[in-house]
Amino acid sequence: MKPYCFAKNGIIDSSAAHIHPMDISLIRGYGIFDFFRTSNYVPLFLSDYLDRFIRSAAKTHLNLQFSKPELAEIIKELIQKNNLENGGIRMLLTGGVSENHFSPSDGQLFIFCEDLLFPSQEKYEKGVKLLSVEHVRAIADIKTTNYAYPVWLSTDWKAKSAEDVIYHFNEMISESSRSNIFIIKEGKISTPNQHILHGITRMRVLELAPETEIRPISFEELLSADEIFITSTTKKILPITLVDDHKIGTGQVGSITKKLMADFVEMEKMHTS
Amino acid sequence: MKPYCFAKNGIIDSSAAHIHPMDISLIRGYGIFDFFRTSNYVPLFLSDYLDRFIRSAAKTHLNLQFSKPELAEIIKELIQKNNLENGGIRMLLTGGVSENHFSPSDGQLFIFCEDLLFPSQEKYEKGVKLLSVEHVRAIADIKTTNYAYPVWLSTDWKAKSAEDVIYHFNEMISESSRSNIFIIKEGKISTPNQHILHGITRMRVLELAPETEIRPISFEELLSADEIFITSTTKKILPITLVDDHKIGTGQVGSITKKLMADFVEMEKMHTS
Repeated sequence: MKPYCFAKNGIIDSSAAHIHPMDISLIRGYGIFDFFRTSNYVPLFLSDYLDRFIRSAAKTHLNLQFSKPELAEIIKELIQKNNLENGGIRMLLTGGVSENHFSPSDGQLFIFCEDLLFPSQEKYEKGVKLLSVEHVRAIADIKTTNYAYPVWLSTDWKAKSAEDVIYHFNEMISESSRSNIFIIKEGKISTPNQHILHGITRMRVLELAPETEIRPISFEELLSADEIFITSTTKKILPITLVDDHKIGTGQVGSITKKLMADFVEMEKMHTS
Repeated sequence: MKPYCFAKNGIIDSSAAHIHPMDISLIRGYGIFDFFRTSNYVPLFLSDYLDRFIRSAAKTHLNLQFSKPELAEIIKELIQKNNLENGGIRMLLTGGVSENHFSPSDGQLFIFCEDLLFPSQEKYEKGVKLLSVEHVRAIADIKTTNYAYPVWLSTDWKAKSAEDVIYHFNEMISESSRSNIFIIKEGKISTPNQHILHGITRMRVLELAPETEIRPISFEELLSADEIFITSTTKKILPITLVDDHKIGTGQVGSITKKLMADFVEMEKMHTS
């Protein structure tokens, strides 16, 4: 955590931020967040993240008392005060303290700056493993703080040397716990369209590869793919070479994935220079 | 909220309780709780609730630094200081502030006392409506704070004059958002056994009606029941007379439900006098 955060209408010491434990973001897990990063002091794709955060608030009936320009201004100030050259920024809006301990009320906005934890270089070069889990997220398209299940699962996936999970249900795949997924078969790129969060990195990949088919994808199809990668703010484009104990393609990072990884680096440079 | 709570190893003013918003109970919705009530100053079925809370902590890999007798002692003191003749007690254990903002760490224990919000007398006399929702809870058998989905749904069920939801999936029912469900057909009582939280009130009803069949129940069977009721700490035994727009039985509270409601009142008296 970086020294300064935004809380209660002003910038304060991060360690002094606090909230009452009866807020329903705590006792009912009802809150929204978003997370983006700075690259060379530039908040990457900020406008998209702010739009999504504002949309999440509206969809969860939470009262975000700050406009998009106001949020952007606070974020700019936080980046300066925290000297955040390359870091993460977390926006959090809580459900508030509620009379019946259930219904949303007036919550609080917090914005924290963090060190970034990228996967190791080795993972980008060799690819990583996903563990398949039968599950479908409720209201997956809203960026709620509801990650109790993957946190609980993480003990298991770590024990099995997996990086994360791939959710599938009724034979169809959706997403990883905090990433979107893409598959490549015979040169064609595809990504699922249901029960997913619409990731900002996913959106960028769709710009880099506009021919991508956005469609339902079965678990069987996933296993028979030539290449797989996942996308997220902190993972960027991360190759998958194993699903459970099943080797994907040759078991090496594929050429289309490599090209997209390089293109994404260029895209990021373009946005930050 | 009552004036005194337990936080950070001592009894303090409830309004002074606070937690850092980066605790994963907030940013990842990873925490556990339990909730019971006092009746005539007696914490009803306390031992069962404490056992479940301790079990939830173990299952979620959270470090509860208090033993069962220690928790009971704190609760006794809180009941005295808050003069809690008839009220609710909420125990909460958070996931802690975690270095990677995901994995559980050392969390905090809070215990709050609250006013109780029982359903109105009219609801007990006439029965209430449940809205059916296709959903199955992940790790339903652990009492996590993961209620983002039902909080989100509540706007809809309130608009439809329902008291709560009944979850069903693959044609089988499981539970309501914070209650267990029982059905009665031709004098036989049944309750589902899968994807449920093992409620303490459910356990008491099984003691009152040991002939109850604990088995999978289909949604179709639910609709064709003669009587339905739900059970929870704050609802006790609450009759259901409508599921969506489908009338259950005669549409009146049935005789077996009424008898169990009366038996439960007697059981509660026995435990508190």
